[in-house]
Amino acid sequence: MAEPPGLGLCDVREAERRLRERVHRTPLLTCAALARLARRRLLFKCELFQKTGSFKIRGALNAVRSLVEGSERAGGELPRAVVTHSSGNHGQALACAAQAEGNVGPDLQPQLRERTGSGHGARVKAEVDAGQRELQAPSSATAGGIPAYIVVPRTAPQCKQDAIRSYGATLVPCEPSDESRAETAARVVRETGGVMVHPNQEAAVITGQGTIALEVLEQAPEVNAVVAPVGGGGMIAGIAIAIKALRPDVKVFAAEPCNADDCYQSKLRGELTPSPHPGETIADAVRTNIGPNTWPIIRDLVDDVLTVSEEEIKRATRLVWERMKLLIEPTAGVGVAAVLSERFQAFPRDLEHVCIVLCGGNVDLSSLTWLTERPGTAE
Amino acid sequence: MAEPPGLGLCDVREAERRLRERVHRTPLLTCAALARLARRRLLFKCELFQKTGSFKIRGALNAVRSLVEGSERAGGELPRAVVTHSSGNHGQALACAAQAEGNVGPDLQPQLRERTGSGHGARVKAEVDAGQRELQAPSSATAGGIPAYIVVPRTAPQCKQDAIRSYGATLVPCEPSDESRAETAARVVRETGGVMVHPNQEAAVITGQGTIALEVLEQAPEVNAVVAPVGGGGMIAGIAIAIKALRPDVKVFAAEPCNADDCYQSKLRGELTPSPHPGETIADAVRTNIGPNTWPIIRDLVDDVLTVSEEEIKRATRLVWERMKLLIEPTAGVGVAAVLSERFQAFPRDLEHVCIVLCGGNVDLSSLTWLTERPGTAE
Repeated sequence: MAEPPGLGLCDVREAERRLRERVHRTPLLTCAALARLARRRLLFKCELFQKTGSFKIRGALNAVRSLVEGSERAGGELPRAVVTHSSGNHGQALACAAQAEGNVGPDLQPQLRERTGSGHGARVKAEVDAGQRELQAPSSATAGGIPAYIVVPRTAPQCKQDAIRSYGATLVPCEPSDESRAETAARVVRETGGVMVHPNQEAAVITGQGTIALEVLEQAPEVNAVVAPVGGGGMIAGIAIAIKALRPDVKVFAAEPCNADDCYQSKLRGELTPSPHPGETIADAVRTNIGPNTWPIIRDLVDDVLTVSEEEIKRATRLVWERMKLLIEPTAGVGVAAVLSERFQAFPRDLEHVCIVLCGGNVDLSSLTWLTERPGTAE
Repeated sequence: MAEPPGLGLCDVREAERRLRERVHRTPLLTCAALARLARRRLLFKCELFQKTGSFKIRGALNAVRSLVEGSERAGGELPRAVVTHSSGNHGQALACAAQAEGNVGPDLQPQLRERTGSGHGARVKAEVDAGQRELQAPSSATAGGIPAYIVVPRTAPQCKQDAIRSYGATLVPCEPSDESRAETAARVVRETGGVMVHPNQEAAVITGQGTIALEVLEQAPEVNAVVAPVGGGGMIAGIAIAIKALRPDVKVFAAEPCNADDCYQSKLRGELTPSPHPGETIADAVRTNIGPNTWPIIRDLVDDVLTVSEEEIKRATRLVWERMKLLIEPTAGVGVAAVLSERFQAFPRDLEHVCIVLCGGNVDLSSLTWLTERPGTAE
């Protein structure tokens, strides 16, 4: 977090270079049924198919690669360790990125294979390697990679803890509060001599997530708007940097649960307004507050923040499961819900091609009770 | 069922012509994690993304279009009605196909959009419109299409009945036995003057399903084997006709639950051996027996039948959900389970590129109890 938030397109381009052939270039799918509901053409950026099951590997890998390139330029040694706090996708992503350093095994070798061709019809072949790794895989914190220490609240689901451990990271338990997370991470940094990689305020994380936007602009130059969920703001800030530099005509919308609407409140008041006690939300990955580095970018470059209710998030998530057969996590439903909302429907018709980032697919399959709370279909 | 089973590649080519731009050309995905488990390269043919959420629309639409083309050549009127018995995907598919006749609305207009291109990386854009239709959509049995009558066991899940009804079909309840199904369907044919379209023994249904194989051979000419689940045998027979005509070197494997292994028993004995009372299986769409038209094709052209246990099916289904983030129905897990089985692992290494047909994604989201029967991950 030493760098100021003065990040630009060149930083996102650098991230793109670092990530090339190390992460998937995820497909962009359309769905006529959902487009009819939204009354616009929808383009779904499928980051649920990304390595580790979410977009987070982009930022984490860019951060780790930046550290390694820095060491190499200085003729020094690899970082002693990387450290973060996360109960979810960033923890897995950082563990995976750290393990891959000096150990470019099958997990991070170029894997995206696709055949494109001319002529009638579709020739789609894309790599889907989104899952959490085999949990019984033999692993150790130092096997060929950089040691990773992930501070995890004691209350985090066992399956997510197992997934982080499966990438060879060391878990450090903490209490489920922001203070305990930060304090514990700071202690681990001191004790290990490691480098903190913040889940969303780290500059390299923000610009890594911005590579999503570069891909979208190439895959769908006709796009008029990009919608992505906002938690800490790393993804929406990275996307906004790239979009507004290359295509200022393209709108950038953040989507947020009503129950955790600090980004909405901040934009409304014109100043960073964190929520000390965000409410419960099924979109657990975006309960986090935006922070000092993402706020100025969001303030200046994000066009609007759209909030959605828990019911809207559940309905949207279920719609994507039922209609698209894509197992998104509820956090990815936040953007879908925003585009289906009455407020979005009232936006001008010339917002015709709308890209929604389906940010991840790490669903806890053992806790799907919300699906059956209201029997019947999502509509 | 008037035609003999002497079907050939030309019939599958005719089906391909009839279906062109009316169904999706579904993508072929790969997954490094599952390939590692199978120790082969796996290519997943994503028929769960097909219209109506399963491959069944191919056969149903080919049957309905054949009837209509026949009427047109004879200068006669459209068929008075189409009739079938089905508690699931074929019922939806026939209803959808019948509704589309004379009424090529948004549901069956060309919708697959994809951009292919050259250069580095993937440019994938594919249409996913796999869901059951909005269930509240206004509909009537005769609105612009051919009336469809679907005989449905009283015990069929409400959501499947609703989905069939949403395509404007008339549901005719029957008792949950093969006899009651057949008798009720015969009565409806007499009363309506309609044409029976059998879910898997109808020639046009078999050749319609065979178009899957034409696409696979184009999308992945390197393929060494195709694996598909077998129930009534329409899909595997259609695939075998096309594959063995064009590429006799490519193996064709049927995959079947141990609990409903009539196809396996028939191949073993060399004669059609239907099971009068198949056991329960989570792969409900393949409890059906193969029949007189699919049996000779399976006998002569299918290389082998692989059976898998209920545990193997559940594990494979869950693996695809977790690793690929694809919401397949358990019946689609049967083929995956077969490829992961010890028996398949023992097959020669030169079966390197194996295509598995993920036949559908119509999961009843309100009955996922099997997911939590064994907590933890699938492995």
